[in-house]
Amino acid sequence: MGLPPGSPVYIGRRDPTQAVLSLLSFDEAEYGEVYPDTVEALLAAIKPGKRNWINVNGLSGGLVEALCAGLGVHSLVVEDILNVEHRPRVEAYDDYLFLITKMLSIHEDSSLEYEQVCFIVTDSLVVTFQETPGDCFGPIRQRLATGVGRIRRSGTDYLAYALLDVIVDNYFLVLEGQGDVLDHLEIRATNPNPAASGEFVAELQQAKAGLLRLRRVLWPVRDSVSALGRLDGRFLGPELQPFLRDLLENMVQAVEAVETFREHAASIHEVHLAYVSNRMNEVMKVLTIISTIFIPLTFLAGVYGMNFRHMPELEKPWAYPLVLGVMALGAGLMVVYFKRKKWF
Amino acid sequence: MGLPPGSPVYIGRRDPTQAVLSLLSFDEAEYGEVYPDTVEALLAAIKPGKRNWINVNGLSGGLVEALCAGLGVHSLVVEDILNVEHRPRVEAYDDYLFLITKMLSIHEDSSLEYEQVCFIVTDSLVVTFQETPGDCFGPIRQRLATGVGRIRRSGTDYLAYALLDVIVDNYFLVLEGQGDVLDHLEIRATNPNPAASGEFVAELQQAKAGLLRLRRVLWPVRDSVSALGRLDGRFLGPELQPFLRDLLENMVQAVEAVETFREHAASIHEVHLAYVSNRMNEVMKVLTIISTIFIPLTFLAGVYGMNFRHMPELEKPWAYPLVLGVMALGAGLMVVYFKRKKWF
Amino acid sequence: MGLPPGSPVYIGRRDPTQAVLSLLSFDEAEYGEVYPDTVEALLAAIKPGKRNWINVNGLSGGLVEALCAGLGVHSLVVEDILNVEHRPRVEAYDDYLFLITKMLSIHEDSSLEYEQVCFIVTDSLVVTFQETPGDCFGPIRQRLATGVGRIRRSGTDYLAYALLDVIVDNYFLVLEGQGDVLDHLEIRATNPNPAASGEFVAELQQAKAGLLRLRRVLWPVRDSVSALGRLDGRFLGPELQPFLRDLLENMVQAVEAVETFREHAASIHEVHLAYVSNRMNEVMKVLTIISTIFIPLTFLAGVYGMNFRHMPELEKPWAYPLVLGVMALGAGLMVVYFKRKKWF
Amino acid sequence: MGLPPGSPVYIGRRDPTQAVLSLLSFDEAEYGEVYPDTVEALLAAIKPGKRNWINVNGLSGGLVEALCAGLGVHSLVVEDILNVEHRPRVEAYDDYLFLITKMLSIHEDSSLEYEQVCFIVTDSLVVTFQETPGDCFGPIRQRLATGVGRIRRSGTDYLAYALLDVIVDNYFLVLEGQGDVLDHLEIRATNPNPAASGEFVAELQQAKAGLLRLRRVLWPVRDSVSALGRLDGRFLGPELQPFLRDLLENMVQAVEAVETFREHAASIHEVHLAYVSNRMNEVMKVLTIISTIFIPLTFLAGVYGMNFRHMPELEKPWAYPLVLGVMALGAGLMVVYFKRKKWF
Amino acid sequence: MGLPPGSPVYIGRRDPTQAVLSLLSFDEAEYGEVYPDTVEALLAAIKPGKRNWINVNGLSGGLVEALCAGLGVHSLVVEDILNVEHRPRVEAYDDYLFLITKMLSIHEDSSLEYEQVCFIVTDSLVVTFQETPGDCFGPIRQRLATGVGRIRRSGTDYLAYALLDVIVDNYFLVLEGQGDVLDHLEIRATNPNPAASGEFVAELQQAKAGLLRLRRVLWPVRDSVSALGRLDGRFLGPELQPFLRDLLENMVQAVEAVETFREHAASIHEVHLAYVSNRMNEVMKVLTIISTIFIPLTFLAGVYGMNFRHMPELEKPWAYPLVLGVMALGAGLMVVYFKRKKWF
Repeated sequence: MGLPPGSPVYIGRRDPTQAVLSLLSFDEAEYGEVYPDTVEALLAAIKPGKRNWINVNGLSGGLVEALCAGLGVHSLVVEDILNVEHRPRVEAYDDYLFLITKMLSIHEDSSLEYEQVCFIVTDSLVVTFQETPGDCFGPIRQRLATGVGRIRRSGTDYLAYALLDVIVDNYFLVLEGQGDVLDHLEIRATNPNPAASGEFVAELQQAKAGLLRLRRVLWPVRDSVSALGRLDGRFLGPELQPFLRDLLENMVQAVEAVETFREHAASIHEVHLAYVSNRMNEVMKVLTIISTIFIPLTFLAGVYGMNFRHMPELEKPWAYPLVLGVMALGAGLMVVYFKRKKWF
Repeated sequence: MGLPPGSPVYIGRRDPTQAVLSLLSFDEAEYGEVYPDTVEALLAAIKPGKRNWINVNGLSGGLVEALCAGLGVHSLVVEDILNVEHRPRVEAYDDYLFLITKMLSIHEDSSLEYEQVCFIVTDSLVVTFQETPGDCFGPIRQRLATGVGRIRRSGTDYLAYALLDVIVDNYFLVLEGQGDVLDHLEIRATNPNPAASGEFVAELQQAKAGLLRLRRVLWPVRDSVSALGRLDGRFLGPELQPFLRDLLENMVQAVEAVETFREHAASIHEVHLAYVSNRMNEVMKVLTIISTIFIPLTFLAGVYGMNFRHMPELEKPWAYPLVLGVMALGAGLMVVYFKRKKWF
Repeated sequence: MGLPPGSPVYIGRRDPTQAVLSLLSFDEAEYGEVYPDTVEALLAAIKPGKRNWINVNGLSGGLVEALCAGLGVHSLVVEDILNVEHRPRVEAYDDYLFLITKMLSIHEDSSLEYEQVCFIVTDSLVVTFQETPGDCFGPIRQRLATGVGRIRRSGTDYLAYALLDVIVDNYFLVLEGQGDVLDHLEIRATNPNPAASGEFVAELQQAKAGLLRLRRVLWPVRDSVSALGRLDGRFLGPELQPFLRDLLENMVQAVEAVETFREHAASIHEVHLAYVSNRMNEVMKVLTIISTIFIPLTFLAGVYGMNFRHMPELEKPWAYPLVLGVMALGAGLMVVYFKRKKWF
Repeated sequence: MGLPPGSPVYIGRRDPTQAVLSLLSFDEAEYGEVYPDTVEALLAAIKPGKRNWINVNGLSGGLVEALCAGLGVHSLVVEDILNVEHRPRVEAYDDYLFLITKMLSIHEDSSLEYEQVCFIVTDSLVVTFQETPGDCFGPIRQRLATGVGRIRRSGTDYLAYALLDVIVDNYFLVLEGQGDVLDHLEIRATNPNPAASGEFVAELQQAKAGLLRLRRVLWPVRDSVSALGRLDGRFLGPELQPFLRDLLENMVQAVEAVETFREHAASIHEVHLAYVSNRMNEVMKVLTIISTIFIPLTFLAGVYGMNFRHMPELEKPWAYPLVLGVMALGAGLMVVYFKRKKWF
Repeated sequence: MGLPPGSPVYIGRRDPTQAVLSLLSFDEAEYGEVYPDTVEALLAAIKPGKRNWINVNGLSGGLVEALCAGLGVHSLVVEDILNVEHRPRVEAYDDYLFLITKMLSIHEDSSLEYEQVCFIVTDSLVVTFQETPGDCFGPIRQRLATGVGRIRRSGTDYLAYALLDVIVDNYFLVLEGQGDVLDHLEIRATNPNPAASGEFVAELQQAKAGLLRLRRVLWPVRDSVSALGRLDGRFLGPELQPFLRDLLENMVQAVEAVETFREHAASIHEVHLAYVSNRMNEVMKVLTIISTIFIPLTFLAGVYGMNFRHMPELEKPWAYPLVLGVMALGAGLMVVYFKRKKWF
C-alpha cells in the first residue's frame, strides 16, 4: 500500500520459503548441474556458449532481487515475481520474454494447490521462479540429463516450451481428479439418508468453487499460450510454431473440460434437488394419507361415544359389528380411491 | 505425462484395435482396390498418376507411425491421430492438410458413440484414420466403384469433401434419434405415476448431458468446415467452394438443431416440475380438506362424550338427532364453502 | 443419406405438391400473364426485352429440376430449393442471386405455418419457388397489373425487393397474432381454478416453443436482408439501397418483437407460478389454522370423557357450562392471536 | 399491408393529431416566430440567410407529406415519420440528416408515455416532427428568444444537438421516477400482509416490463448518438464533437441506470420470494407444533375414556390427577425439546 | 434540466464542500508547498520550470470555475468536474488530458463511500479535484517531500500515474473488506436460528448490491486505464508504458475479484436456501410422523370408548391390557417401518 511501484516485496498467503538456486548448462554434446549458494557464484557459472536453465526455488531472502538485478530485469518484473497472486500473462521486453503461469497439484483430500511459476527467457537462458520446493519438472531434467528427444539439440525457446508443456500436462492430471470428485458426488446425489443432504450440498458448492478458481487460472494461461503463438519471432523460433499450436489446443481442451465439469456440477445439483424434493413429497403424502384415513373413522367412534340417553342404535346387538364393518369398509374404500388416483 | 511432445502413444478410453490397411486407386477411367498387410506394400501400391484413398482401420500395432513416417508427416500429427480425445480441427502444413473430425453412431438404447476420424489430404492422396472397424463411408465406396456422380472425375479435394459430407449427413441421423428421445420424454413428463419421476429426471439429465457432449463435438466441426472454406486454394480448388458453403450451411443447421434440442429439454424439465408440483399440491390440498372437515365434527362428538353429571341436553330425546343434523350441516357448509372458493 | 451432393430430392414434412407454373412479363408500357404447362413452353414465353417473373407453386413432378437446368442454375441450388428445411440465406453466383426465405401464415387456432420461398434473380428474370399454392403476393400482382407505384418502371431487383417486402410485412401480421396469444395467456395466468394450471403451463410452453421457432426463422432472414445490403451492385442497383435499409430496419424490429415476446412469456410464467404458489399457501394455511384451533379443544373434551371414578369436577353443576366457556374462550383467543399476527 | 413502400400512412396506437406548424428564424442579431396555417405560407416564410427551426406538432392532415415534398425529402423518410412505432436511428442522405428519437414523459401514476420525435437537419434548417402537442423544448425556445449561451451564435447543427440534449436530459427525470417506483416496491417487498403479495408481484412485473421497454428505447438512442459522433463532418461541425461526446456519455449513463434498475428489480423479487416463503414456513411450523403437542395428549385421554370393565387404575383416587400431571409433563417436555432444537 | 450545456452547476448527493486549494511545486532538486486562498494567488505561485501539483479539495464556492478558466479548460470539462455522478473515463484535449476516476473508502460498518476524483494533466501541471477533504494521497506527498523513488526525477505524467496507482491500490483494501463481509455471511448461511434468515437474506442482498455498484465503478476505471495505455505519447511518455501495463493488470485483477465475489455471493445464497429448506423439511417431517403415529392409536381408543351395549370384549379382563399392548405394538411397528425407510 502506497509503496513506490516496483518495490520488491513478497505478497502471498504462504510464508515465503528461503530461495535455493540451481543451474543446468547443456548443449548437444555436454550437460552439467551446479548448485551455487550465492547469486554471484551462479552468474559466474553461466556458460555463455551453451543453453542455461536457472531454477529458483523459494522467493525469500533477497536472492530474487539480486539475480534479477544481475540479469538486468525491470523492477516491475521483480515485483510481479514476488507477488504470487498475479494472473498468468506473457510480456515481451526488449531483451527477454517474461511469463507468469501457475503450477497445479492435487492433495490427497482432493483439494488443489496453486503455485506461481515465472519464466524469464533470453537467447541463452531460461530462468524459472517457483514459490516452494517440489515441482513437476522431473521428466525435463531427466530428458536433459539423458539427451532423449530434441531438447538438447534445440534452443532455450524449446526448453521453455517443454517446461510449459509439462505444466499443462499436469493440468489434465488435476482435471481428472476433479472429474473423479464429481463422479463420486453424482453417486451421492440420490442418497436417501436425509441427514447427508446438507453436507452433500456444502461439498458440491466447494467443488463448484474449486472449478471456478480453476477456470480463473486456466483462462489466462490459455490466453498467454495464445499470445506466445502470436509473438513475432524474436524469442520463439518458427520451428516452435507447431508445438505452440499443439500446446494451445491442449489448453483449449483443458478450459473446455472445466466448462463441462461446471455444467456437470450444475446438473448434479439439479438432480439432487429434484431427488430430495421428490422424496420429501412422497413421505409427506404417505403420512398425510394415513391421517386422512383415520380421522373420519375417529369421528365415527366419537359419535358412538357420546352420552345421549336416547341413542336407540346403541341398544341393538348388531350395531357394534355393523359400525366396525362400516369403519373397515370406509378405510378400504379410501385406500382403493387413493390407489386408483395414483396418490401413492 | 512428461513424455517428449510428439511421442506416438495411443490415448483413449477404448482398447485400440489392430490397424487394417486398404488402398483405393482411381481416375476417371480406372478403379482398383488393394488390401496390403504392411505399410511397405501399401506405399509401393500407390499409383502416382491417379487419386489414391488409403484407409486405416484401427490405431494399434505401429502401422500408423510407420505409414506417417513413410508419408513424411510431422510427429505432432501422429500424436494427434493416436490421441482420440482431440477436438475437431483443421491444420494446413506445407505439403498436406490435416483434419480431425468425429464420426457419430447411435446405439439401440439411443446412447451415442463417438469415433475420431483423421484426414490427411495431399494432391494425390487422401488418408483416413479410424479408431475401429465399421464406418459410414459405404456410399462413397459404391460411388467410386460405379463411377456415379463427379467423384471419379474430380481431385482428392472432392473425395475428402465427399467423405466429410457423408459424416455430416450422418449427424442428422443421430440428431433425429435425439429428437425422438426428447419427444418420448416429453410424453412422459406428465406421467401421473409418482414413482416414475426420479427415473424420468435422471433420464432427462442423461439426455441433456448427451446433448451437451454433442454440442462440444459439433461446434468445433463447424469451425473446422468454416476454416476449410477460408483456406487459400493450395489444397481445395475453387470449384469446391459452393460445396464447402453447402457443407457449412449443413453444419450450422446441425449446431442449431442441438441448441433447439437443449431448449426443448429445458422446457420439458420445466413442464415436468410444474406438473409434479401441481399434482402434489392438489393431493395435499384434498387430504387436508378431508381432515379439516372431520376435526371440528370430532370435537363436537367429544363434547357430548364428556361425563359431566349435569349436561341437561343429554336427556332430551331430540338431542341426538339434532347433533347429528348439526354435524351433517356443518360438514355440508364447509364443503360448499371450499367449493365456492375453488379450493378443490 | 449418402447421395451425391446436388441430388434433386424433395426433403420436407409435407407431401410435395405438383408444381404449377406461371409467367408475368412486363415493362413500363405492357403487362401480360401466361400459365404454361411445360417448362419448354415457359422458357419459350419469356420475353427478353421485358422483366419476367416466373412463379413455381409446388415442388413435385420434375419441373423444378427442368426449369433450373433450362436457366443454367447450379445443381446445389436445385437441391436447396427442394429441401424445404433450409435456413434462410442469400448467395451470389456469377449469373444470378439465390435467396432462401420463409413465408409465414397463421392458422385459426393461432398455430403457425412455415413455407419456404426461394428466389433466383437475374437482370431480366425473377423466379420464385413456393412449396404449396397460396401466398401473400396478391398486392404485388395487383400493382403489376395496374401499374401503381414504381414497380413497372423499375428493374427485376425492385420486383424481388417488393416480394420480400410483402413477406416481411406479413411477419408483422403473424407477430400481432402471437402478441394476442400472449395477452390472452396473461389474463389466464391468475385464474383461480386449480385444474386449469396444468393446461395453462402446457399452452404457455407451446407459445414459447412457437416463439423459439419464429426466432430461429427471423434471425437468418434478418441476416440475409443485411447481406443483401452489403452485396456489390451487380444484382441490386444503388437506388435500391434506401429500400433495403428500410427492409433491414423492419426485420430488426421484427426480431426485437420476438425477443420482447419471449421475455413477456417468461414474465407470464413467473406471475403464474407466484400466483399458484401463493394461492396454494393461503389455502393450506387456512385449513391448518382450522385444525389447530379444534385439536386442543378436542383434547379438553377427551379429558372430561375419561372414566376415572374420582373426578370431582364432573359432579359440579357449573362444570359443564364452564368447560364450554373455556373452550369458546380458547378458540376465540387463538383466532384473535392468529389475526393479530396476520396469519390469515 | 401490401402498400407500395414509401406510402404516407399513419401507423401508431394513438389517434393522430391535426398537425400545427411553427417557424422560428434567428441569427446572432435577430429572432422571429411565425405560426403559418399552410405549408406554402411556411415555406415562403423561411429566411434563407438565417437559421430556421420548423416544428410540426401532430402528424395528421397531409401537412407532413406536403412539407416533406416541399423540402425534397425521400418518400421512405416520410413513411418513417408517420410510422411512430419505429426504432430510434440516424440516417445521412445527400442533402439532409434524418434522425428518429423518442421523447419520454412520466404520468402521475408513474406510467411512461413515449412520443416519437423526428429530426431533419440541413445547413439552414432544423425540422422536428412530434406526434402530439406538448414537449420539453421550452428551455430551448427561451434560450433562442433571450439569446443566452451560444445557441444563437451557432449553426443548425448546434440547435439540433441542443434539442437532443434536452430530450436526453429528460430521460434522467424519467429514470429518477422509475428509481422511486423501485424504492417504494423494495419497502413493500417485506410486507407481512399475505393478501398484498399477489398485487405486489403484479406491480413488480409491470415495473420490470416498463424497464424492458425503456431499455429497448434507450439502447438504439445511444447507438444513434454514437453514430452521430462517427458521421463525417458534412452536417455536424468539428466544434460539436466535445458536445456529442458529452451527450454519448450521458446516454451510456442512462442505459447503465436502466440495467442497474433491472438488477435491482430482480433483487427485490428475490427478497420478496424469500420473505414470503420464510414467513409461510414459520406459520406452518408453529401450527404443526401445536397439533403435534395435543395429538398424543388426546390419545392418552382417549385411552382412559375406553369402557373396559377391568381397568383397575380408573378406581384409584390418585389416578386422575396423575394422568393430568403426566399430560402436563408430556406437553412441557415436548415444548422444551422443540425449543432446544430451535424448531420455533 | 434545460440549462445550456457546459453550465457549471454542482450535481451530487452530498452537500458540496467549500473548495480548499494547495500547490506543490518540485523538481529533482527542490520541493515547496503553498496553500493560497484565491485562484489568482495560486496561478501566480505556479513555477513554470518545475512540475506543479494543484489539489482542489471540495467543489463549492466558484473556485473550480475560476481555476479552470484561468487554465483554459473547456466548459464541458468544468461541468463534468462538478457533476460527481459521472462514469470514470479519459479524454484527450489539445492541451491537456482529462481523467475522471473514483476514490473508494470503506466505513466501519463495511459500507462503501465513493468520491469522484478528476485529473487534468499538462506538461508542467497536474490538477486534482476531490469532492471532500481526506484522501489516500498521503504516501505520494511523503515521497515527494522526501524524494524517495523516481517521483521527483520524473515528469507530470509519472506523478499522475503515481496518484492513480495509489487510488487503485486502495481498491484492493476495499475488496479485502468485501471479502471479509462475504466470509462472515458464509458462516451465517447455515445458522439454525429461523428468525435470522430474513435478516440474513437482506444483508446478503445488500452485499450483492454493493458488489454490483463496485463493478459499475471498476469496469470503466479499467477501461480508462486501458485507454491511457493506448493514447499516443503526447501526454504520457514511452517510459511510462510498463507502469501503465502494470496498472492495467491490477485493474483487471480487481475487476476479476469483484466477479469472483459476485459468484461467491450467489453460491452463499444457494447454500442458505438449501439449508433453510432442508431444515424446514426435516422439522415438518418429524412433526408429521408424531401425528401419524398417534392418530391411528387415538382411533383405537375411540372404538373402545363407544357406548354400545353389546361389545363383548369390553367384559373380558384381558381385553384392556391386550388393547394397550396392541397400541404399543402398532406404534413400535410404525416407528420401525419409518426408520427402515429412512424417513427420519
